[in-house]
Amino acid sequence: MTRSKSQFEVFREKIKIVLYGTNTVLGRMFDLVLLGLILLSVLLVMMETVEGIDQKYHSLLIICEWIITGFFTIEYILRIISIQKPVKYIFSFYGIIDLMAIMPMYLSLFFPGASILSIIRALRFLRLFKILHIPQISQQSIQLKEAMEASKEKIMVFIYFVLISTIIIGTVMYLVEGKESGFTSIPMSIYWTIVTLTTVGYGDISPQTPLGQFIAALVMILGYGIIAVPTGIVTAEFAKKSLRNNTVNTNKICKKCHSQLHFDNAKYCHECGTELPNN
Amino acid sequence: MTRSKSQFEVFREKIKIVLYGTNTVLGRMFDLVLLGLILLSVLLVMMETVEGIDQKYHSLLIICEWIITGFFTIEYILRIISIQKPVKYIFSFYGIIDLMAIMPMYLSLFFPGASILSIIRALRFLRLFKILHIPQISQQSIQLKEAMEASKEKIMVFIYFVLISTIIIGTVMYLVEGKESGFTSIPMSIYWTIVTLTTVGYGDISPQTPLGQFIAALVMILGYGIIAVPTGIVTAEFAKKSLRNNTVNTNKICKKCHSQLHFDNAKYCHECGTELPNN
Amino acid sequence: MTRSKSQFEVFREKIKIVLYGTNTVLGRMFDLVLLGLILLSVLLVMMETVEGIDQKYHSLLIICEWIITGFFTIEYILRIISIQKPVKYIFSFYGIIDLMAIMPMYLSLFFPGASILSIIRALRFLRLFKILHIPQISQQSIQLKEAMEASKEKIMVFIYFVLISTIIIGTVMYLVEGKESGFTSIPMSIYWTIVTLTTVGYGDISPQTPLGQFIAALVMILGYGIIAVPTGIVTAEFAKKSLRNNTVNTNKICKKCHSQLHFDNAKYCHECGTELPNN
Amino acid sequence: MTRSKSQFEVFREKIKIVLYGTNTVLGRMFDLVLLGLILLSVLLVMMETVEGIDQKYHSLLIICEWIITGFFTIEYILRIISIQKPVKYIFSFYGIIDLMAIMPMYLSLFFPGASILSIIRALRFLRLFKILHIPQISQQSIQLKEAMEASKEKIMVFIYFVLISTIIIGTVMYLVEGKESGFTSIPMSIYWTIVTLTTVGYGDISPQTPLGQFIAALVMILGYGIIAVPTGIVTAEFAKKSLRNNTVNTNKICKKCHSQLHFDNAKYCHECGTELPNN
Repeated sequence: MTRSKSQFEVFREKIKIVLYGTNTVLGRMFDLVLLGLILLSVLLVMMETVEGIDQKYHSLLIICEWIITGFFTIEYILRIISIQKPVKYIFSFYGIIDLMAIMPMYLSLFFPGASILSIIRALRFLRLFKILHIPQISQQSIQLKEAMEASKEKIMVFIYFVLISTIIIGTVMYLVEGKESGFTSIPMSIYWTIVTLTTVGYGDISPQTPLGQFIAALVMILGYGIIAVPTGIVTAEFAKKSLRNNTVNTNKICKKCHSQLHFDNAKYCHECGTELPNN
Repeated sequence: MTRSKSQFEVFREKIKIVLYGTNTVLGRMFDLVLLGLILLSVLLVMMETVEGIDQKYHSLLIICEWIITGFFTIEYILRIISIQKPVKYIFSFYGIIDLMAIMPMYLSLFFPGASILSIIRALRFLRLFKILHIPQISQQSIQLKEAMEASKEKIMVFIYFVLISTIIIGTVMYLVEGKESGFTSIPMSIYWTIVTLTTVGYGDISPQTPLGQFIAALVMILGYGIIAVPTGIVTAEFAKKSLRNNTVNTNKICKKCHSQLHFDNAKYCHECGTELPNN
Repeated sequence: MTRSKSQFEVFREKIKIVLYGTNTVLGRMFDLVLLGLILLSVLLVMMETVEGIDQKYHSLLIICEWIITGFFTIEYILRIISIQKPVKYIFSFYGIIDLMAIMPMYLSLFFPGASILSIIRALRFLRLFKILHIPQISQQSIQLKEAMEASKEKIMVFIYFVLISTIIIGTVMYLVEGKESGFTSIPMSIYWTIVTLTTVGYGDISPQTPLGQFIAALVMILGYGIIAVPTGIVTAEFAKKSLRNNTVNTNKICKKCHSQLHFDNAKYCHECGTELPNN
Repeated sequence: MTRSKSQFEVFREKIKIVLYGTNTVLGRMFDLVLLGLILLSVLLVMMETVEGIDQKYHSLLIICEWIITGFFTIEYILRIISIQKPVKYIFSFYGIIDLMAIMPMYLSLFFPGASILSIIRALRFLRLFKILHIPQISQQSIQLKEAMEASKEKIMVFIYFVLISTIIIGTVMYLVEGKESGFTSIPMSIYWTIVTLTTVGYGDISPQTPLGQFIAALVMILGYGIIAVPTGIVTAEFAKKSLRNNTVNTNKICKKCHSQLHFDNAKYCHECGTELPNN
């Protein structure tokens, strides 16, 4: 028994290297095949909704989707049995996505139409960042994430103000324009206000009365100034980050007080006055 | 008499803590209930304008609005009698909004339709910032406000120029396109120019003649450059603020070596290790 | 004769103070009246083009315009005779605008319809900056102007590239979409490309074929990145300006070499090493 | 023979100076004529697609195009024979464009309609940067290029995330809105999502159901924040570049007092007046 168990162990180890590893040739090839299958799968779901294509190739699309779903199911099971702590994987971000990626097809057996939910597989593309170990890319992602997180609070405060303004402007436009111009209700007017303030401007609803157009023009000019604010917030964070990266060397760590934020050319720790190492 | 007055005083004190305080459990709960009621009230007014909903539930909506108005009225009266200087509250920003929030319903008794003005209650959402005492959030609001105030003048000068250009461009388009394309008058053409320059682009009016389209393309490319200006102004203010707040204090000068570029929280000169002055 | 001439001189001097001065009560009042008349005049021209208003009040509008034109004509003549060098004023920026502001009405005697050109009077609003001697405002204007001038070249290079791309993209869309979707010619397709790249998006022409929509989506994402460029250019200039204003003191002028760009806390001229004055 | 060869050499040399040189009068004149012909040629191709113009002047347009094509062909041949290493030119960026600029007309002899591809001549406008030797302009181009290259990776990571979001949002809208509102398939919905997120907003497809409009409003507000990101990235790069290029050289350290914040062109330390090292 110990011998067969050991064989299983060896098999598990091999599978793990292929599925989770990115350094071996096999592991890398598997990742590329996986990304290709995800792309194919997402394209299949899309094509299923295009009438002309679906009518002609319906059975073919369904068969391909089932094959890919089968592959993803086997992959999911192997991922679980090949690692020491399967529970950790199952409840991880990627584990949940991997499960959600195969569920819709099985659900479609009972609820026809559920297969469209397979589009959730698009989230598996995020795995690319796990696969690519290009340090530059992951550093860029981290900088992006940091800058966005740092500006999150300011942007939320800002959006809160914008939403309140949106309610007021929407009501004014509802009262001024009325039902004839498409401003059929306050929620509809608020929708129009958001469409206008964000400069999307569909034109499905647009003011018809001179007064309404005058107010709309004011709203647009306001939106002009307003669109500058989130840009300003995010840009300032980026600028701060990239300027700091250039004048400050975070690899210089003080031996005595372990503070790590020093100028690139600092000779002494600004926290405790000890001489800094010269790296 | 003094005893009954004292009882009233105690009652007043308690009410004040509940209404104005944010530290006690009751005060905090009251604030949450209030915010919930404001949200409910705003949603009710909105739904009143949606035809399908209003026809079905008209009486229910009206009853709910009256209940909330009653609650807000009691709250308003209690706010006045519970503080020492009621006049200060009545004429404060929040006091005026609180009064305006209850007036429309009473007005609707005489002028039907005035109830829609209750949407002004949306402004009561601003109270959130009084309720939340999260220092981070209020600091963000202050930074936002400061950056916008600092850029106010530049943006006004800029908008003044844009408006003058708008008149000239609008007239040119009116002369080029004429009434057939929807450019029925100069004000209409100016409206179109604003819609285009701000990149909203409804498409309800759009140039039809080749010359008009050529000028429109020029206006768009101009708008391209122009939209950069308010963004640039606001961003520069943000960048200035956040750079100054976070990194370097140029007023900290080392007494020994006179180097002047130190972190805001530096205690020792990073050039020579001398202790820094504490300003 | 000398006495009467002297009287004329006194009159001229008085007129000059009223017309060009901004420090006396009369001068300031005249400026306000002038701005008001310009505004009124521009509004009159606009209203003349609005059908409903023009039909009712045509004669009234024309009379008002002639009165204002008369006033402007007298003002123009007085401006010329009240200063020493009338030629300089006549060929100055404001002089040309002032002349152009009165010409259209006189032209309309021979060419009906020319009165609409009176809209050029809107340019007289620029005089506001001469009238207002608020140093903050004029400093803001200068900063705006400088930042825009500094970024002019970069933006021109950028627009040159955008225009070339526009021709290529327009032709591709013309070939892909064809005449049925509104892409009737290459110039029309280029117009669509500019409408799309600048995110204006009227929707009067929009791609109908799947391939056209795919290319359009690519163009939009490209436009996404592209719109960032002029903003980046202008913002960087603003940031540079406002950062420099803070760390550099341009009032510190070296007595020896007259160089004037020093740090706020500089003690010695960085050009010649002389000690700097302490202002 | 040597003499005639020498004559050919002289001729080749002269041709080279005219075609490639920009310093002689003839070389400069040739460049201007060339740019003019490129512009004329691009305009001709455009006009060929405008129905009204093409019907009237078809033969004239074709003749002009053949004349210009002939000129470009001769120019191409002369460019090849006038330089030492023709292969290098033929496979260079400009060489390929020059060949592609003449091919479509010859192809149109066999495939009618291929003449429209002559629009590729627009790429020859890029030669302007070779012709203009204004150092300021080329410096601006380099700065533009550098800033865009530095931000390339961040923007690609960002667009990758946006595309994944686009697929998810598109599917949600497809399920919510359905075929009646124009969301006929998932690719169509993704197209709508890109049109909305980039704030282009044609309005050819727009949500009709309240839920769809609610989600659309959320997408727009998301797009609001999202549009800030590429701007932030590019701006930060520009700011970094222009701040570094223009103001302060932190590598210049005073030998006496070790202060490190000096102007790039400073000759003396502004702290102690010592001469600065020249790096």
